[in-house]
Amino acid sequence: MFLNIDRKDSKPLYQQLIDETIKLIDQGALEVGESIPSTRSLANKLGVNRSTVIRAYEELQALGYLSSKQGSYHRVQRRKKEVEYTADRSSVISWEKACSADTKAIHQIFLRYSPERLKNDLSREDAINISELDLDPRLYPMTEFRRCINQVLHDSGASSLQYGDHKGHIPLRRQIAKRLRLHGISVSEKEILITSGAQQAMDLVIRMMGRNGKRVAIESPTYAAILPLLKFNRVKTREIPMNAEGMDLDFLEKVLAEEPVSFVYTIPNFQNPTGITTSHRHRERLLNICLKHRVPIVEDGFEEDMKYFGKVPLPIKSIDEKNIVIYLGTFSKALFPGLRIGWVTADLECISRLTAIKRFSDLGSSKLVQIVMTEFLKRGYYDRQLKRMHRAFRKRMQMALQTMDVCFPPTIQWTRPAGGYTIWVKLLRQWDEERLQTHLVKFGVIVSPGSYYFPDRKRSAYFRLSIAKQNEEEIKEGISRLGKALYAMDKGNSHVA
Amino acid sequence: MFLNIDRKDSKPLYQQLIDETIKLIDQGALEVGESIPSTRSLANKLGVNRSTVIRAYEELQALGYLSSKQGSYHRVQRRKKEVEYTADRSSVISWEKACSADTKAIHQIFLRYSPERLKNDLSREDAINISELDLDPRLYPMTEFRRCINQVLHDSGASSLQYGDHKGHIPLRRQIAKRLRLHGISVSEKEILITSGAQQAMDLVIRMMGRNGKRVAIESPTYAAILPLLKFNRVKTREIPMNAEGMDLDFLEKVLAEEPVSFVYTIPNFQNPTGITTSHRHRERLLNICLKHRVPIVEDGFEEDMKYFGKVPLPIKSIDEKNIVIYLGTFSKALFPGLRIGWVTADLECISRLTAIKRFSDLGSSKLVQIVMTEFLKRGYYDRQLKRMHRAFRKRMQMALQTMDVCFPPTIQWTRPAGGYTIWVKLLRQWDEERLQTHLVKFGVIVSPGSYYFPDRKRSAYFRLSIAKQNEEEIKEGISRLGKALYAMDKGNSHVA
Repeated sequence: MFLNIDRKDSKPLYQQLIDETIKLIDQGALEVGESIPSTRSLANKLGVNRSTVIRAYEELQALGYLSSKQGSYHRVQRRKKEVEYTADRSSVISWEKACSADTKAIHQIFLRYSPERLKNDLSREDAINISELDLDPRLYPMTEFRRCINQVLHDSGASSLQYGDHKGHIPLRRQIAKRLRLHGISVSEKEILITSGAQQAMDLVIRMMGRNGKRVAIESPTYAAILPLLKFNRVKTREIPMNAEGMDLDFLEKVLAEEPVSFVYTIPNFQNPTGITTSHRHRERLLNICLKHRVPIVEDGFEEDMKYFGKVPLPIKSIDEKNIVIYLGTFSKALFPGLRIGWVTADLECISRLTAIKRFSDLGSSKLVQIVMTEFLKRGYYDRQLKRMHRAFRKRMQMALQTMDVCFPPTIQWTRPAGGYTIWVKLLRQWDEERLQTHLVKFGVIVSPGSYYFPDRKRSAYFRLSIAKQNEEEIKEGISRLGKALYAMDKGNSHVA
Repeated sequence: MFLNIDRKDSKPLYQQLIDETIKLIDQGALEVGESIPSTRSLANKLGVNRSTVIRAYEELQALGYLSSKQGSYHRVQRRKKEVEYTADRSSVISWEKACSADTKAIHQIFLRYSPERLKNDLSREDAINISELDLDPRLYPMTEFRRCINQVLHDSGASSLQYGDHKGHIPLRRQIAKRLRLHGISVSEKEILITSGAQQAMDLVIRMMGRNGKRVAIESPTYAAILPLLKFNRVKTREIPMNAEGMDLDFLEKVLAEEPVSFVYTIPNFQNPTGITTSHRHRERLLNICLKHRVPIVEDGFEEDMKYFGKVPLPIKSIDEKNIVIYLGTFSKALFPGLRIGWVTADLECISRLTAIKRFSDLGSSKLVQIVMTEFLKRGYYDRQLKRMHRAFRKRMQMALQTMDVCFPPTIQWTRPAGGYTIWVKLLRQWDEERLQTHLVKFGVIVSPGSYYFPDRKRSAYFRLSIAKQNEEEIKEGISRLGKALYAMDKGNSHVA
């Protein structure tokens, strides 16, 4: 075997050995069945450590290039043959017909509603994207997270890779319960179910209570990604309009008096998309209305931890003496979304049912990830991270609002959030949203179309900004561009409409 | 401050500092508002490195015990107050009534069907549990897995913690596609959707095609945890009896001729629970029958990689020219279950719809875990692990079957699997399963009751053994005990019936 080994190469020696051997086999210079030198003789010949050769042979065997007998590596082996991939074989099944009507509905929304599509359609490389609710990865506490993983790998062995408790890792549930008690919610780990993000918690709640022709009351506008789930589960929506104080409670009272509703879905803090936070009084009244009609409230606390301006009332769940509130939380908005850890807390009887659905729908969330998150919380890293986040987003939100004050035409209105990431902007009149997007991209800025947040995706006079992903400079520049674009629309560019 | 620091303690110094300070605060020896020494002076006093004190103060601040101003740590602080937990607050909502009938059904099954309950009910500490399908954690490749995590943490930064592709991490899908091509399945990464285990893949398939009064044909007996999902989605089941060759295809033909069916669910390798593997001919005929009726096949390949005796035909999906097979796979059975990585591959149109449902039900699986798994596959560790597994389970299965031959009464019948983990045992007559379990536990062995695997959970004359979790010695001992227990039943102990 003639192997080219280069000691100056940054590639490790064993890796060079592997790559060179594969090259020889692929070129046919080494043939199937041919013997290869023993580890000792090759090591001597090349003047490398024998352990280097052993490691290389081990990997070559694992990759299927070498056969072994009784622990020694002998011959070049024929690798198992792959079949070819034939693209675009069509199916004799019409999947459109094989699927239920609800699947068609969710599939259509999926195809339309995708940020990837938005980006492709509106390609301009230097456009500033202030549409997304994904947290700025530059703020991720990577060092602390790495420390936790290393600790977990060191401490816990195989048990971290077995099936876990269906409700979720108990120490994690304890940590979350403790945090919730700091938010005034009287809860223990027993009433907590860990989910794959708050999104799965929502899916479970809808599957539990809101299927097949039932009615659910939602704020209008509301979180966009709950809408396809409701449709998919054949739930009818009753839209309760948002006003400056939150959901219109007089309207809600009328709706609940008229017809039974499975639950009321609300986002009391920094509502998505409007950014509106309700007062303690509003929360009390909402709770009392629902109590009177014995209707559960689903409280989405996805940004509970983003109270960076202070002065936000405690969750509705904290005054829920009669246990009618189902509370959803997540680490995706203040830490990082890729872990997929959320939770739901409610009356034990309710949690038990949600756990049953969760258990059979995925046998529980990844235990390893939950253990790492537990370590992160235990060490106080999450609290420290929140302080960092609060400092950063106080400034970002101030920058966004100041820039809007300066750069937006006087005909435009917008909300002034008490925290969180989103600002809701109202135009003077309705626009065709595709044209609006195209117009804004010409000015180098991307926002999120208002229609996403209404069940019927009707034309709207709104769009949503998000400050989650961009830093102060980018926010300032993005909103200035937006201001210019809005002025250009305002000045009689009514062909955009 | 009087802090007890012990240099001989294995606990790091900074951690000792933290624990001691908290103790003083909790005891009231340090009061809220009290000043603490500067890092420099405390370091001098204790004779430790100043950085040790800084690290301890930082963590104490993160934990909420110290206030800081302009980066220096000043005073003991009142920690935010938790509300108390009041257990057993009852809810004014009747969750039983608030939930749909299907939720009641899945909840009841959940409460009954839980290994925890089984263990508690049948507590005998030294009982050998040959009921579970969880892989023996003593076989986990922990060293290799740690190596992969370290590599991933070193290589990939924040991107591994962002939202990922809804279909799953592309390099992982490529690796899986490559493996499937080695199993004769012509597929690219485009036709693969990553799921939280094969269980979620099954849930998605049922949600897509099998809801609300539709019919699905299943093998009888079949995988226990698909049954509650079918019930939950109001799917009617048509049971196709298993015979020694697999699903009774004459029976299937009759069923399909009589009424439309949404899909046929089958486990061709080492069927759960029977352990039966179908022949190539059986697979061809099943495919042709379904083709004729244009009925999709859901092929559960959950133990595709556990062909440790060799000689198992390729998957049905490998001869699926017309693309009617939806194939499910997982790493939970040959590697470790705690990662929660499975996949589904099918016609692109079908995958697109499944992706839509997955996207809105949990926004995609954890990216970090997927990246680590990709590294594990790339390095050839998975193939190496399979070889190890095959060696171990060849011996375990041989031991199980040999011991049964020797120790079981001649009236008992059982299957002789060509791989996988489960053996299906038939008794001479039906038994009351609770009494049977109690009887077996007296002899120190636990098996899985046969009724779990039938939709109506009827009394059955069967039980399932699994060799997944116990080593050869334990299998030998467990099955010997089982033999004694069966002889004791046989010898006129008919009160058990």
